Amino acid sequence: MKKSPTAEIISVGNELLIGHTLDTNSHWIAKRLTRFGWTLQRITVLRDSLAAIKNGVKGSLERKPDLLITLGGLGPTHDDVTLKGIALALNRQLALNLDAFAMVKARYIALEAPTGLTRFRTKMATLPAGAHPLPNPVGTAPGVLVKVGKTSLVSLPGVPSEMKAIFTGSIIPMLKAAKGQAPLEVSIGLVGIIESALAPALDRTRKAFPGLYFKSHPRGREGGIRSLIQLHVYSVDPDSRSKLDNAIAYLLRELSKSA
Amino acid sequence: MKKSPTAEIISVGNELLIGHTLDTNSHWIAKRLTRFGWTLQRITVLRDSLAAIKNGVKGSLERKPDLLITLGGLGPTHDDVTLKGIALALNRQLALNLDAFAMVKARYIALEAPTGLTRFRTKMATLPAGAHPLPNPVGTAPGVLVKVGKTSLVSLPGVPSEMKAIFTGSIIPMLKAAKGQAPLEVSIGLVGIIESALAPALDRTRKAFPGLYFKSHPRGREGGIRSLIQLHVYSVDPDSRSKLDNAIAYLLRELSKSA
Repeated sequence: MKKSPTAEIISVGNELLIGHTLDTNSHWIAKRLTRFGWTLQRITVLRDSLAAIKNGVKGSLERKPDLLITLGGLGPTHDDVTLKGIALALNRQLALNLDAFAMVKARYIALEAPTGLTRFRTKMATLPAGAHPLPNPVGTAPGVLVKVGKTSLVSLPGVPSEMKAIFTGSIIPMLKAAKGQAPLEVSIGLVGIIESALAPALDRTRKAFPGLYFKSHPRGREGGIRSLIQLHVYSVDPDSRSKLDNAIAYLLRELSKSA
Repeated sequence: MKKSPTAEIISVGNELLIGHTLDTNSHWIAKRLTRFGWTLQRITVLRDSLAAIKNGVKGSLERKPDLLITLGGLGPTHDDVTLKGIALALNRQLALNLDAFAMVKARYIALEAPTGLTRFRTKMATLPAGAHPLPNPVGTAPGVLVKVGKTSLVSLPGVPSEMKAIFTGSIIPMLKAAKGQAPLEVSIGLVGIIESALAPALDRTRKAFPGLYFKSHPRGREGGIRSLIQLHVYSVDPDSRSKLDNAIAYLLRELSKSA
């Protein structure tokens, strides 16, 4: 069984930590990583603070994921400090990247923007040494890719439309190239069972079917006829479909015994 | 100016990392922390893995927040390992807590649950040494509070209704007791301005009004008459209302100069 490639996300923005904005970006990316058989190990949400970003990126890189995605903080304003934080974490200089500069310039020419390439616009083409820009088809700030050992460190804008456009254009091909095996998954709803009554039957099933992963989510209240438990059963081995079906049949038999 | 108390959240659950479930719990808590003048420094989303939880909790505690909230993984099943991970991080034993046991037992008696206090139910009353249970008025697993140095480490269930009930009953009084100063905040919408044209005016305003915090969010596309930027201006000093108003007036003058 091939090992699943691993990923982490670092989402940057005070608006996420003061409860203004819900981090739907990470959720959108999590779905796609899973679809291509990648394992998202951790999401970290950080303030727009140089020290927080530097420490967060260093911490993630120490865990050596195959892919580390940062979200947000790539814009032209002073409080967009993600690339500065990454440069500090990597101990690399920030410098004007000519490919990125060409992308930003082309964008402003196309927009017929009233003013020229001010230092605020130039900032969006100022990347850590050794980085490559990723085209942004719907906005100005390019995405950024830096290889750090085995980790591909990718920085994307926080504006959802821009993040999705760069992800689709530049990251999905990367996910496909190093594709893991998408996990097998079955979801069933168990009605009229409370979680602590399910637990012993689930425990026996787990022992009888090692290698499968079970997770129960109570959707109703404990007790009462309307209680509902949603049960997810996964396997990272895509050839284990029949094993998975057998495990569910086994669990249902165990439950009917105790009812 | 009084320093704002700090908090971190650790949200546990594979369902959050495979893109099944959006972490609305952290967002709900973030709003309330902000309302009572607390600063949420970081949210970390982790897998249902003992090693991940142990390392995540240790990492958070090293940053010494006043409050560390873990969410999820308190249930009766085998894959609910949050308290085990916390016990490992703290190097403390897990043991049956008699107060927690009384809470779990009372709940099952009230529900007239068909079976007794199985080991799955007893698990929910098995807490790290020195911990205190927090009453759960709408579910079975109590919340858990452990003091670790200056940090109050609180563990809440992941089921939103249960998390909210324990938070409201036991945590909000704690937030009020150590209440920080809720930040002053003004939001304005700037129409027909692109972010990179706003940047120089914003930069001058920032220099003229140190101590204020500005964050711009593009809501429309760069360029085009329909572009909209939402600008948040904060101050952690609640007596700076007139300073904040002056800063916005200053910014609007700077913008009209460059238009």
